[in-house]
Amino acid sequence: MIYLDNAATTLQKPPQVIEAVAEAMHSLGNSARGTSSGSLRASRTVYEARVKIAELLGCPKAEHVVFTCNSTEALNIAINGTILPGDHVISTDLEHNSVLRPLYRLEAEQGVELSFVPADANGNVSYKDFETLIRPDTKAVVCNHASNLTGGMIDLARVSRIARRQGALLIVDASQTAGCIPVDMEQIGADILCFTGHKGLLGPQGTGGMCLRAGVEIRPLKVGGTGVQSYSKYQPQEYPTRLEAGTLNSHGIAGLSAAVDFIREIGIDAISAKETALMRRFYEGISRIEGVTVYGDFSASQRMAIVALNIRDYDSGAVSDELSQKYDIATRPGAHCAPRMHQALGTQDRGAVRFSFSWFNTEAEIDEAIRAVREIAL
Amino acid sequence: MIYLDNAATTLQKPPQVIEAVAEAMHSLGNSARGTSSGSLRASRTVYEARVKIAELLGCPKAEHVVFTCNSTEALNIAINGTILPGDHVISTDLEHNSVLRPLYRLEAEQGVELSFVPADANGNVSYKDFETLIRPDTKAVVCNHASNLTGGMIDLARVSRIARRQGALLIVDASQTAGCIPVDMEQIGADILCFTGHKGLLGPQGTGGMCLRAGVEIRPLKVGGTGVQSYSKYQPQEYPTRLEAGTLNSHGIAGLSAAVDFIREIGIDAISAKETALMRRFYEGISRIEGVTVYGDFSASQRMAIVALNIRDYDSGAVSDELSQKYDIATRPGAHCAPRMHQALGTQDRGAVRFSFSWFNTEAEIDEAIRAVREIAL
Repeated sequence: MIYLDNAATTLQKPPQVIEAVAEAMHSLGNSARGTSSGSLRASRTVYEARVKIAELLGCPKAEHVVFTCNSTEALNIAINGTILPGDHVISTDLEHNSVLRPLYRLEAEQGVELSFVPADANGNVSYKDFETLIRPDTKAVVCNHASNLTGGMIDLARVSRIARRQGALLIVDASQTAGCIPVDMEQIGADILCFTGHKGLLGPQGTGGMCLRAGVEIRPLKVGGTGVQSYSKYQPQEYPTRLEAGTLNSHGIAGLSAAVDFIREIGIDAISAKETALMRRFYEGISRIEGVTVYGDFSASQRMAIVALNIRDYDSGAVSDELSQKYDIATRPGAHCAPRMHQALGTQDRGAVRFSFSWFNTEAEIDEAIRAVREIAL
Repeated sequence: MIYLDNAATTLQKPPQVIEAVAEAMHSLGNSARGTSSGSLRASRTVYEARVKIAELLGCPKAEHVVFTCNSTEALNIAINGTILPGDHVISTDLEHNSVLRPLYRLEAEQGVELSFVPADANGNVSYKDFETLIRPDTKAVVCNHASNLTGGMIDLARVSRIARRQGALLIVDASQTAGCIPVDMEQIGADILCFTGHKGLLGPQGTGGMCLRAGVEIRPLKVGGTGVQSYSKYQPQEYPTRLEAGTLNSHGIAGLSAAVDFIREIGIDAISAKETALMRRFYEGISRIEGVTVYGDFSASQRMAIVALNIRDYDSGAVSDELSQKYDIATRPGAHCAPRMHQALGTQDRGAVRFSFSWFNTEAEIDEAIRAVREIAL
């Protein structure tokens, strides 16, 4: 199989990630629950992972790295834990349903007012729109770092300056960027940066989390056992415990920790350069094929390793199925949980076929995928 | 190490569970996201796990098995998703903070009224108390299947009859029983049965879930991407999707599925018999040692494989540390996230030392633990 659906999940993991999970399943007890050797090993594994993630993503304190089971959970915690009834929130057309649906629910049930920065037909936003839409009562800007559909990016440092001027929080969805390009929450100016473990970070499913700027107050979504302050009726106030009720997935976190080691060994710049080169090679190969329509802006200086396209007037599901069945190439058709972005691109009716690349893809695979697209477009 | 902290997490997993996770990490894409072979393999893996869990726990429909990252998440979804402001709820002194803290939060923030069925000094409840406390406005009875501190059980079939007469939901915390003894949600009469994957079910951390009776309406705690109905602004209404936003932990679920296979091969009755015998052997060995105080009721016909004790007036943490450091025996001291139960037993000041057993423990390990307790009590 040629796996080109890395924006959904990276199927190929570094061998040491799988080994770390297996080793953890042989040796770890329950993190932060008692002081027996297995429990301490689990606690240390989790803490080391916090330190590594903090360093990778520019989070000043390891204790401000909160683990969740995926970025959807992190985004739900961030959005529901900071926004109050009646608040105004800005978001964008680039968002995934993991941002949109929590916001729409707050709009419907809590009287939260939403404004969306539109994307143009290439999927780009205008920063002027953030300035126009922001208001004194804007509580938060919830913003994608990169579209999971086109790979197009938002300059978050620019957005954060606009947000800060009005005292609004910047909540970032880094699901498509963490592990793939340098991400530094301080440099960005993010107050909360949500990430997932199983995409660019090359870790196991069931991992993810959020990095918090010091001083950000977030109400927990889930409460429960914490192994500390057990006689308090309420969730402890200290991070990360405040947002981490119940047994952590230390098996998965051990794998995520090994994945961060792998990324640091290769170097995030080398990963970014390779993925970008693969994406560019694919784009050059398919963009001039007659009948192929490519979505998104390829003139930008930085973009993620994603190419979304359609072939003639074919349904994206049919094309993706043919790629899978005839060529054994895995892609993702349909809506990609990004309804506003498809509307901006005009692809809401038939979706698009998304090719997304990882460190483990090869030029030969890219060339095979180009050949397949050319044949289908004939 | 002699690992006797299985009520916190089962450190020893069947080898095929670890193999299944490793295999999944080599081959699975993102469940319910597209139709490429990796994605379909993930979808099938998850569905098979639903079927097996449904069969094991007596849930009539596989689609009514919802996966979460642990039982704390399942309980938070169940409690926050069914109880409304002003409702009355009955719970018990046997509960874990994964039940207590969500309830206390509803009490503090939503005006929910709570009544607790008390436990006596042996940790037992009186069923009369459920009958006395239930009212026409009782929305739910949230009830432990077995205490994580003493191993004492609640006869849920009796509780469900009382709840049903008043039209109240029965929400069950089966964290300590699923996988250890036969659990049948239909026989019990549970409306929602919450379980964790990493304890008696012998699966990976990061897994758990809830089994739903047909017709129970639960509002989602998290909303987001579902891979289906992506143009709907709101979470799909169908179970399990309604309660499963974001990428599922199909790696962990593959392990949980293999763990259920293991449990079915051994037979749940054989597992229960062995664990009970180990618990009885330990109890017989330590209960007559001078200076040892055992908590809980050992005359009950059925109880879980847990023995909580203290030695003389020693702090439970000091005893557990000595067991760990001198004898390499893992136990759990302190509060066990069960504050009301410790208050009922009169152990809130120094906690208790909890020994909890699994299928993988041996009689030789039990005898070594008895010897250690005897020496410490000297």
